[in-house]
Amino acid sequence: MGKQLPPPNEHTDNEMVKMEVNLDDMPGEWLGYVMDLLFEQGANDVYYTPIYMKKNRPGTLLQLLCSDHKIDEMKNILFRETTTLGIRYYPLSVHRLEREFVSVQTEWGPVTVKKGIYGGDVVQWAPEYEECKHIASTHGIPLKSVYDAVRKAEV
Amino acid sequence: MGKQLPPPNEHTDNEMVKMEVNLDDMPGEWLGYVMDLLFEQGANDVYYTPIYMKKNRPGTLLQLLCSDHKIDEMKNILFRETTTLGIRYYPLSVHRLEREFVSVQTEWGPVTVKKGIYGGDVVQWAPEYEECKHIASTHGIPLKSVYDAVRKAEV
Amino acid sequence: MGKQLPPPNEHTDNEMVKMEVNLDDMPGEWLGYVMDLLFEQGANDVYYTPIYMKKNRPGTLLQLLCSDHKIDEMKNILFRETTTLGIRYYPLSVHRLEREFVSVQTEWGPVTVKKGIYGGDVVQWAPEYEECKHIASTHGIPLKSVYDAVRKAEV
Amino acid sequence: MGKQLPPPNEHTDNEMVKMEVNLDDMPGEWLGYVMDLLFEQGANDVYYTPIYMKKNRPGTLLQLLCSDHKIDEMKNILFRETTTLGIRYYPLSVHRLEREFVSVQTEWGPVTVKKGIYGGDVVQWAPEYEECKHIASTHGIPLKSVYDAVRKAEV
Amino acid sequence: MGKQLPPPNEHTDNEMVKMEVNLDDMPGEWLGYVMDLLFEQGANDVYYTPIYMKKNRPGTLLQLLCSDHKIDEMKNILFRETTTLGIRYYPLSVHRLEREFVSVQTEWGPVTVKKGIYGGDVVQWAPEYEECKHIASTHGIPLKSVYDAVRKAEV
Amino acid sequence: MGKQLPPPNEHTDNEMVKMEVNLDDMPGEWLGYVMDLLFEQGANDVYYTPIYMKKNRPGTLLQLLCSDHKIDEMKNILFRETTTLGIRYYPLSVHRLEREFVSVQTEWGPVTVKKGIYGGDVVQWAPEYEECKHIASTHGIPLKSVYDAVRKAEV
Repeated sequence: MGKQLPPPNEHTDNEMVKMEVNLDDMPGEWLGYVMDLLFEQGANDVYYTPIYMKKNRPGTLLQLLCSDHKIDEMKNILFRETTTLGIRYYPLSVHRLEREFVSVQTEWGPVTVKKGIYGGDVVQWAPEYEECKHIASTHGIPLKSVYDAVRKAEV
Repeated sequence: MGKQLPPPNEHTDNEMVKMEVNLDDMPGEWLGYVMDLLFEQGANDVYYTPIYMKKNRPGTLLQLLCSDHKIDEMKNILFRETTTLGIRYYPLSVHRLEREFVSVQTEWGPVTVKKGIYGGDVVQWAPEYEECKHIASTHGIPLKSVYDAVRKAEV
Repeated sequence: MGKQLPPPNEHTDNEMVKMEVNLDDMPGEWLGYVMDLLFEQGANDVYYTPIYMKKNRPGTLLQLLCSDHKIDEMKNILFRETTTLGIRYYPLSVHRLEREFVSVQTEWGPVTVKKGIYGGDVVQWAPEYEECKHIASTHGIPLKSVYDAVRKAEV
Repeated sequence: MGKQLPPPNEHTDNEMVKMEVNLDDMPGEWLGYVMDLLFEQGANDVYYTPIYMKKNRPGTLLQLLCSDHKIDEMKNILFRETTTLGIRYYPLSVHRLEREFVSVQTEWGPVTVKKGIYGGDVVQWAPEYEECKHIASTHGIPLKSVYDAVRKAEV
Repeated sequence: MGKQLPPPNEHTDNEMVKMEVNLDDMPGEWLGYVMDLLFEQGANDVYYTPIYMKKNRPGTLLQLLCSDHKIDEMKNILFRETTTLGIRYYPLSVHRLEREFVSVQTEWGPVTVKKGIYGGDVVQWAPEYEECKHIASTHGIPLKSVYDAVRKAEV
Repeated sequence: MGKQLPPPNEHTDNEMVKMEVNLDDMPGEWLGYVMDLLFEQGANDVYYTPIYMKKNRPGTLLQLLCSDHKIDEMKNILFRETTTLGIRYYPLSVHRLEREFVSVQTEWGPVTVKKGIYGGDVVQWAPEYEECKHIASTHGIPLKSVYDAVRKAEV
């Protein structure tokens, strides 16, 4: 239906950084909590990679992406909530598509769809996960069926 | 026996970039296809790393290495064939060895060997995989036996 | 402090099964949702392992542990919520420790601690994650500091 | 439109085994070849899992699923093509859905769809990868667009 | 040159078990130590797999293979040295090759080679890692060059 | 009790580089050895990540962190001990905490504890692994009990 948010235009963002920490002395249990905190403070993305560290230790590489004006807030969480003694980081560029939000009708009500526009072409078209999940839970329908229904409803 | 290709000299290439995309909303099935396309369009390397993303999602980190004049071609494939809304990238340096190709004789015919030369020393010496595989398939010999035979044939 | 739940005794459970599904044609996004459903329906544990499947596909191995009388409920979720055409399973034994719950006092109030008892010896002693997380969030204290405080408060 | 193969009925197969080999002394390069051989000889599935082995070695766990009358053929490949000195295996049950193949029309011609039927309900519905890939390559269309078109064409 | 140990014959061992523990509340640092203890107490193999557990936790799956008469010793280490409240296990069969040890001469002295014999055929032939490593360290030679030299010296 | 080493102050180091090599033609067995060599020559950290490479190959990404004046020494090891034909690298910044070493008394003798100080606050407090391990081995105590004892002994 109508746009729901002012759409950002396609652009290249040169003010992003990737931050990284290697962890082998901290339980995985705490890392789920740390991920939440980092997102809440404005990280654009946070993800963990399994790594093999010295002395036969299974470890975890924490990586996050954020704007460079967020570096200090991220450091603050990382130093206080993890066990690391050092944080490394480096700049990178991010090419972002123009985003547009539309709404489609399904038998269970409207669902927002996020489009990605590249040089004027719509190249991405994805139902919003949280809304589909809500319908699936509420109506007792398989999540994949909700996605399928949204795809078919596309106009 | 002789060189088969004009050997590049040892050098440091400062015009390379690494591109990265995090994916959690795309089936693995499609990623095998994407890897092939990226290699066909001139990526120097493409590889996938399993990552843990928000909301308990197993995801995949797609990384590729290419010359900076290939950035647009790579973006074009990534935006059209994956589900991402953003691509990140940063420059890096690559120190490449001088490469030399020689041919060695085995009981099944000649096999090309790729040498890597570092400051004048031969530090790498590797039979070409596709040729060894072809011999293994055709003659019904274990692949490891073909490699062993090539290594022993080395002059 | 006092026990909070009637403690199960140490025992070996021979009525458990492990169920497994390989997935390469389903987005990771849906798998977070599936994990929740499986736990809600009574799975004892659910976990994902990154695997490399044919045709260069990054895939995910879904594994779960449940009682054998839960097999049909688990199959029902797996067949309806994932894309698999087959589910494999096999029996296993589980040696479980006796569990005892105690409460310790901290400056932020009581925290439950779960003990594991092996042949009469207390071999495990762990603060409950959700309670520590709640304190950390509410009081703005690093989660690791809450755990440390509980460990020091141990009587 | 019509069925293309006699459909197997839903059933539980109790004659399957899982075979496993841990590998830390073999290049990954050879493992792509081994996977192909195992599929050609009738393995139902083959997949690799990254593992951490002793002495700080990144290793690979090779797992395969096959009928128990295939055990000797699989062993023959594994002992000849890998570097292992032992192969472990154990039986498991596999619950398989009824499969039905239908054909749907797209603007690029027909595409086969595989259905999975669970207790009479169609729970899976998936376009055949190789056919979609062929269309994508031949027509220069993103693979995901071919899948989307097949999904929309569903009757 | 001659055999160094009485060779075991090729056989299938039906008295093996696999034991498994999922860990998300223990630092990776301790797991290197646990692996050593398990090997010292007679585990045939021990390896770690990265897994994704509930609540966005990177976890580790500890697996070990041992004879069934070692089960209690393994449990004792696992319950005392890890944080688990349960250990699961199941039996499996292991087909083991006949092993034969021979010695080959290199310019740095003799190196033991382990052969694996399958139905009378030598299918495996591997220099002993610790001996090659010792030569590499002592003589300042790349480890791969030591392996290559042993392979070429093979009679 | 007292400081054991002159503590470095908190600072940001802008002279660090990350080096990377993708490996799919080298046994994992050799990589444990390479890790040791790189640490001996002064790498600040070395770790391995499992990756999926072309042609269905399980591979390993070797990454290391070092000062930029160590680049040549690292390259020398990587080119001589691995099978790579190229090494990539890029600069990064590392924010390091002030470190302070203190000693605490336990029933088995003193144990060093490493503190990390961030803007004047002690945010990290970790017993030295090698000392705890030595106590655990010598006295036959679970490693986790040694850590717990050190934490409780903290003054």
